[in-house]
Amino acid sequence: MTKKIVIIGGVAGGATAAARLRRLDEESHIVLIERGEHISFANCGLPYYIGETIHDRQKLLVQTVEGMKQRFNLDIRNLTEAIEIDRNHKKIKAKNLITGEVYEESYDQLILSPGAKPIVPPIPGINDANVFTLRNIPDTDKIKSYVDNKKPNHVTIIGGGFIGIEMAENLVDRGLNVSLVEKGDQVMGPVDPEMAAYVHQELSAHGVELLLQDGVKSFEGINVILESGKRIETDMTILSIGVKPESTLAQEAGLEIGNRGGIVVNEHLQTNDESIYAIGDAIEVQDYILKQPTMVPLAWPANRQGRIVADNIYGGDQSYPGTLGTSIVKVFDYTVATTGVNEKRLKALDIPYQTVHIHPGSHAGYYPGAEQMAIKLLFSPDGDIFGAQIVSKKGADKRIDVIATAIKGGLSVRDLPNLELAYAPPYSSAKDLINMAGYVATNVLDGDVEIIHWDEIDQAIHDGEVLIDVRNPNEYEKGSVSGSLNIPLDELRDRLDEIPKGQRINVMCQAGLRGYLASKILWLNGFEVRNVDGGWKTYSTANGIDTKIVIG
Amino acid sequence: MTKKIVIIGGVAGGATAAARLRRLDEESHIVLIERGEHISFANCGLPYYIGETIHDRQKLLVQTVEGMKQRFNLDIRNLTEAIEIDRNHKKIKAKNLITGEVYEESYDQLILSPGAKPIVPPIPGINDANVFTLRNIPDTDKIKSYVDNKKPNHVTIIGGGFIGIEMAENLVDRGLNVSLVEKGDQVMGPVDPEMAAYVHQELSAHGVELLLQDGVKSFEGINVILESGKRIETDMTILSIGVKPESTLAQEAGLEIGNRGGIVVNEHLQTNDESIYAIGDAIEVQDYILKQPTMVPLAWPANRQGRIVADNIYGGDQSYPGTLGTSIVKVFDYTVATTGVNEKRLKALDIPYQTVHIHPGSHAGYYPGAEQMAIKLLFSPDGDIFGAQIVSKKGADKRIDVIATAIKGGLSVRDLPNLELAYAPPYSSAKDLINMAGYVATNVLDGDVEIIHWDEIDQAIHDGEVLIDVRNPNEYEKGSVSGSLNIPLDELRDRLDEIPKGQRINVMCQAGLRGYLASKILWLNGFEVRNVDGGWKTYSTANGIDTKIVIG
Repeated sequence: MTKKIVIIGGVAGGATAAARLRRLDEESHIVLIERGEHISFANCGLPYYIGETIHDRQKLLVQTVEGMKQRFNLDIRNLTEAIEIDRNHKKIKAKNLITGEVYEESYDQLILSPGAKPIVPPIPGINDANVFTLRNIPDTDKIKSYVDNKKPNHVTIIGGGFIGIEMAENLVDRGLNVSLVEKGDQVMGPVDPEMAAYVHQELSAHGVELLLQDGVKSFEGINVILESGKRIETDMTILSIGVKPESTLAQEAGLEIGNRGGIVVNEHLQTNDESIYAIGDAIEVQDYILKQPTMVPLAWPANRQGRIVADNIYGGDQSYPGTLGTSIVKVFDYTVATTGVNEKRLKALDIPYQTVHIHPGSHAGYYPGAEQMAIKLLFSPDGDIFGAQIVSKKGADKRIDVIATAIKGGLSVRDLPNLELAYAPPYSSAKDLINMAGYVATNVLDGDVEIIHWDEIDQAIHDGEVLIDVRNPNEYEKGSVSGSLNIPLDELRDRLDEIPKGQRINVMCQAGLRGYLASKILWLNGFEVRNVDGGWKTYSTANGIDTKIVIG
Repeated sequence: MTKKIVIIGGVAGGATAAARLRRLDEESHIVLIERGEHISFANCGLPYYIGETIHDRQKLLVQTVEGMKQRFNLDIRNLTEAIEIDRNHKKIKAKNLITGEVYEESYDQLILSPGAKPIVPPIPGINDANVFTLRNIPDTDKIKSYVDNKKPNHVTIIGGGFIGIEMAENLVDRGLNVSLVEKGDQVMGPVDPEMAAYVHQELSAHGVELLLQDGVKSFEGINVILESGKRIETDMTILSIGVKPESTLAQEAGLEIGNRGGIVVNEHLQTNDESIYAIGDAIEVQDYILKQPTMVPLAWPANRQGRIVADNIYGGDQSYPGTLGTSIVKVFDYTVATTGVNEKRLKALDIPYQTVHIHPGSHAGYYPGAEQMAIKLLFSPDGDIFGAQIVSKKGADKRIDVIATAIKGGLSVRDLPNLELAYAPPYSSAKDLINMAGYVATNVLDGDVEIIHWDEIDQAIHDGEVLIDVRNPNEYEKGSVSGSLNIPLDELRDRLDEIPKGQRINVMCQAGLRGYLASKILWLNGFEVRNVDGGWKTYSTANGIDTKIVIG
């Protein structure tokens, strides 16, 4: 029997499902309903078209309606809105947005891939100001046309998530002065504050005015009035405070909706109506590690889910194992990447964890072009990997993918030293960053070294503990923790008598390695000692030294 | 009790072991004996110093003798050769190469890290010609000085392994004309011929004269005479046909030596004398996947082994799980990376396997700078990953590390689509290369598509099978398999009546994806059909179209 499958939503997941469905059956009737004009467009590329890194608008249209119709023999209805699902009669009501015609379409299976939409709060004056959101091609055209034609001098970006940060970079590239307002105490929510600090540094270094712990109270003509009372004169505003799932249609049809407003599905991505599947930004997924409901509006899950649903409709028994939340963003010269659970979340859930920070080079130091990296690795007391966060000018994407793969392979931090990664001088080191992170984490788990974290140091010094900085004097002079004592590592064995006996010693170096060596020497000489995790690099960055931030 | 540990060999593994031993015990007496002047130098960087990518010779000296003595409190004896091991009395005899003094040194544990040395066959005339090998700093100084001062015009490189290829690139960078002579029918032994073909292409494109299936018969003055009779007038010769383990000392001491001349160790890296450990290029290791003895002279295993041995000497119970052989090399603008077992080896061992080739972009095509990749994935009929080979101008290092990690995590090709890798347009695609490879491999395993390989096509056509090329005419015209029929994918459904019934059809596209879609359409319409794995890209490259090679 020929199936009739209706898909609501023609971007990412919906388009993937349609293509896969056709590969499984030449005869089925596949109806793809899309409210917008375009299907399967490059939504992750939109900021770069505005920034003119991508010059050709055509490139955003990965698949055209005509091309996809032809290749996959699909019945595509763009500029058509699904307005009702009649589950009893297995049909939907659709409205042609050009003609206004409303008609019914029956289905054997229905796939909901409606996506999410930008959150736009009812801020006073918002309708009279030049406020833009960015989600689709028309949004993009509006923003680009405004920048091209009105030649604005200043933009205010509200919200420091992926879109906010990418827009900051791209509008700086277009010559605009950028103010970025973020309600939280850091941008890039998925990473922890000391890692977001690199982003703050980089945004600030490129002239972005960073206003944290502040929000918009109102728009007044050309002014954005912040909750702090600060007033920003601006030519345009990008509102990028987050998205919410487009789940109204599903809700009205009586499908189960989760606390966060997402459509609830089982592991086969079926809703509580077995003929209706749902995928993409609109659904609630399981956190791969925590096994709790979450919402992760990213492209990879949407595509993966589209494929799984198509297979399951044709008799497959595939499960979606949950979302790890691997994500990455370019921030000017830096790359920020993360996978798994962050420390904020582990703390909030009261889950025992450990974390280490290290800063090796992206490849062998003797080969030109190596860049210092920053990696934070999070793991359980048993060594299970919770997640990682990596920032660098080079190689962050590679290392986060290795960690994401290690997690899916069920590897522990103790396995990371055994990962046999590809080494030649232009690419890596004989002990790669990931091997090193594994060594350091294993040392911590085994009690081979005790560590103190960046956010515990000031208190320790306040409590009268000793901090020995084992860097060389020329490094120490460039910046150090006040109250620390400078004894270079290579002099340590000869100067042990300068170190106070009978009290806890903390040692710090630039990035953690020499501090580790020093702590071993001290420990083997009978001192109680802790190494400063991540060294001066983590401490100074986390404390925002040299970064200009306005706090609301 | 204070231990005394003697280490023979102060590069890679030996230096790593020494440093780790000190971190485990401040009191032990650690003697590091090194025949050369330098310890812990950057052996992987040597070609790049000759090529002047690395300008500062000091950078090759990762650790100086003085620096390492100071930091790790080591008793370093460089320019000293170990000439005998007296296992009964647990002591060695060492010779100071400056003074000629011979003395004894006792040990509680002995670590052998002697490395390997270049193979130099007794070719007639070799002693009278300007023949160089490259293994250490003095070798490097000799070659660089010759290039700097004699300003040679032409170099002949014998052997197309890592060193040969890196020297080819670096000497081209120095303005030399390069002839590369390789005994086999391909360079880069660790990869299979169709992947080495990219290297041939790249070497050839950069003016390297490539002479395959040929060897050196003799050196006659300024001429290298090849076995084929060809005569190359040359100013210098680099001999890089491989290395052999420096296992004579071990052998003379009655330690077990394997068939390949490597020192035999157990999983704890102990020789048949429990007080003597051996690591690095001189030992026989287990192939991680095949569980057979092999020798892999690479930096990562040496370093990893050095660490394990140090831990085991101090009561640890760590095993070395064998070597996967992950390796990578820069070849001008290309990167060639491999991990695991190649097809040649699987064939030779008669192990059932399957392989797929795909060619996606290194990142989203709409974002500038994406490069086409070539990946070959090898797997068992159960989906276990045997290995992968990747060539690209961008992103090969990342993807090989992901595969190497997947192997260590015990993942199957069926798990690769579930790897949640980091996607943003500058880094990847929503379905990354690795996801795609997993999909394609799974399709093959599930019989969702049948494939035909690049080396089976000519025979199939010879046997009268039909080959339909589903590329667009403008692509088809640029090069195609003679005898193929061109029906573009998007016209296929309308032109099914042109396709002969009742016989097997093969379909080909540029890189395999459209061929897959076409084969699904044909299969679902009742044809028996195979898709050409890797499409025209794999076929044309493997067949060396546009590559100039001289066959001996």
